[in-house]
Amino acid sequence: MAAYINNQFVTNEESLLHVKDLSIQRGYAAFDFFRTINGVPLFIDDHLDRFYSSAAAMHLKLDKSREEIKSIVQELIKQTTIPEAGIRLMLTGGYSADGYQLAEPNLIITSNPAKTTTQEDFEKGFSIITHQHQRELPHIKSINYLMAVWLQPLLKEKQANDVLYYNKESITEFPRCNIFIVTDENKLATPAYNMLPGITRKNVLALANKILPIEERNIPVEELATAQEIFLTATTKKIIPIVKVNGKQVGDGKPGEYTTKLYQQFLELENTVKE
Amino acid sequence: MAAYINNQFVTNEESLLHVKDLSIQRGYAAFDFFRTINGVPLFIDDHLDRFYSSAAAMHLKLDKSREEIKSIVQELIKQTTIPEAGIRLMLTGGYSADGYQLAEPNLIITSNPAKTTTQEDFEKGFSIITHQHQRELPHIKSINYLMAVWLQPLLKEKQANDVLYYNKESITEFPRCNIFIVTDENKLATPAYNMLPGITRKNVLALANKILPIEERNIPVEELATAQEIFLTATTKKIIPIVKVNGKQVGDGKPGEYTTKLYQQFLELENTVKE
Repeated sequence: MAAYINNQFVTNEESLLHVKDLSIQRGYAAFDFFRTINGVPLFIDDHLDRFYSSAAAMHLKLDKSREEIKSIVQELIKQTTIPEAGIRLMLTGGYSADGYQLAEPNLIITSNPAKTTTQEDFEKGFSIITHQHQRELPHIKSINYLMAVWLQPLLKEKQANDVLYYNKESITEFPRCNIFIVTDENKLATPAYNMLPGITRKNVLALANKILPIEERNIPVEELATAQEIFLTATTKKIIPIVKVNGKQVGDGKPGEYTTKLYQQFLELENTVKE
Repeated sequence: MAAYINNQFVTNEESLLHVKDLSIQRGYAAFDFFRTINGVPLFIDDHLDRFYSSAAAMHLKLDKSREEIKSIVQELIKQTTIPEAGIRLMLTGGYSADGYQLAEPNLIITSNPAKTTTQEDFEKGFSIITHQHQRELPHIKSINYLMAVWLQPLLKEKQANDVLYYNKESITEFPRCNIFIVTDENKLATPAYNMLPGITRKNVLALANKILPIEERNIPVEELATAQEIFLTATTKKIIPIVKVNGKQVGDGKPGEYTTKLYQQFLELENTVKE
C-alpha cells in the first residue's frame, strides 16, 4: 500500500492517524473508492463528484481542487505500479480537541491492489440473504458500516455472499452494492430511494436503456420471488448475478440473459474508458 | 494524553493507528468511557461490564482479563497524574486485510483531562431540541456517532446544547446521555428500550428509588410538555437539568427540586466511591 495523508506521500508503514481523529473517536468520515486499470482511473469524475458531495453533506471542507486530487491520484498510481489498483479517498472529521466536535478534516488517499470479479465469479453468482435495516444518511458515502460488519458472522452461518437491506417492505441496497431485477414483465427495475446511487449503477442504467424498459422505483421484497433475473452492481464487483435469495433459487440458478448481456457491455465500456 | 495500544504504553505522539484499522475503514469499534477523581476510577466495574458486553456483541474478542485492564488503567493514571481524567477504552475491528472483514482487534486505552459539570453548569441547565432518529444496535456502545456529529451545525443554529432522539413517537436518549422526567404525577420516568443503559442512569435510579416512584417505560414525545422536571445523566455531565425543549421552557426554567436533590446525592455517591 502507498498513501497520501494531508499533503504528504507516505509509505505503508507511515500510513498512520492519531487516535484522536474523529474517524476513530466517532466513526466520522466521508469516503469514496474507484479502480484503476493499467494506471487509468475508471469513472474518476463521477467518483470525485460523489466524494465532494458526501464531504459537503457531512460538513467537511475539502480544500483541494478536483485537479489537485487527480494529480495526487496519478502520482500515487505512478509510485505503486499496481496494474489493477483500488484508490480510496477519505476525508475525516479531523483531530478533534474534545473527541466530538468537528475539526480540520484529514485527507487520506490510499492505493491497494484491487480484486475484481472474474468470469468464474460471474458464472457462480451470489447467494444472498435479506435483512431489515436502513442505513443512516443513505445518500452520503460515509465510513459507517456498523451493521454490515456486525452481520458478517450471520452471513457465514447462512453461507451467503452478501446481505440485501430492506426498509418498510422495500428493498434498498447491499452494504456496498446496488440491486437490479429483471421483472416478470421484462423490465429492469432498481430502487430509487433510501440508498446510495452507485457509479456502476449509473453506467448500467445507461447501457440498459438501449436494451429494455427501466423503472427506478420502490421494489417490494416479495417481488424478488417473481423476478426473472437479479444482479448487483458495485465498483469492485462490477456486475454479479444473484442466484439464490434466502435459500430460494432465482430462475434456473444461472446468470440470466440480460445480466450476461449487461455484464459484457460493461466490460466493453471499461475497456473503452481505460484506453 | 497518554495511551496504551496493544500491549504498550505510548506517548501522545505515538498514539497512532494504521489507516487499515476497521475503525478508520468502516467505523467499527466498541468503546467505553469513565472518569477518575484523584486517581480513583469511578464505577469501573460497571463500565468494564458494559465494555466486555459491547465487545462480545460486536464479535470482538477482548483477550485481557478484567484485572489486567484494571492494572493497565492504574498504570495510565500513574503515568499521567491528571487529577480528573477521562479514561477511554476502545476495541476496534483490527487491521483488516481487505478493509472489511473482521481481524485481530486492536485495544486502545487513553487518558485525558476530563471536563465535568460545575455548579454553574448545573444551575444554567441545558436547552435541547428533539430529532427523529434511532441509533443502530442501541444496546451496544460503539463508535458510531455519525448522526450525532452530523447534527452539530443544527445544534449551533438552534442554539441548543444537545439533541434528544425519538423513535416512533417515543423519546429514547441523547447521543451520549440518558433522559429522565419527573411526571405531573410526581413519578420519575425514563425510557426502557432502544437506548444505551448508562452507568450514571443506573446510579440515579438506585438513588431515586428512595425518593419517588420510578417508571422505566416508553415516554411519548408529548409528555415532555407536561413534565415538571427533565434532566439528563451521563458519565462526563453527571446530571444536568433540561430547562428548554424546542424553545419551550420547562417548569419555571430553573433546576427542579428532585433534579437538585438527585444531583446532590450523586455528588455524595461519587465522593464515597472515590475515597
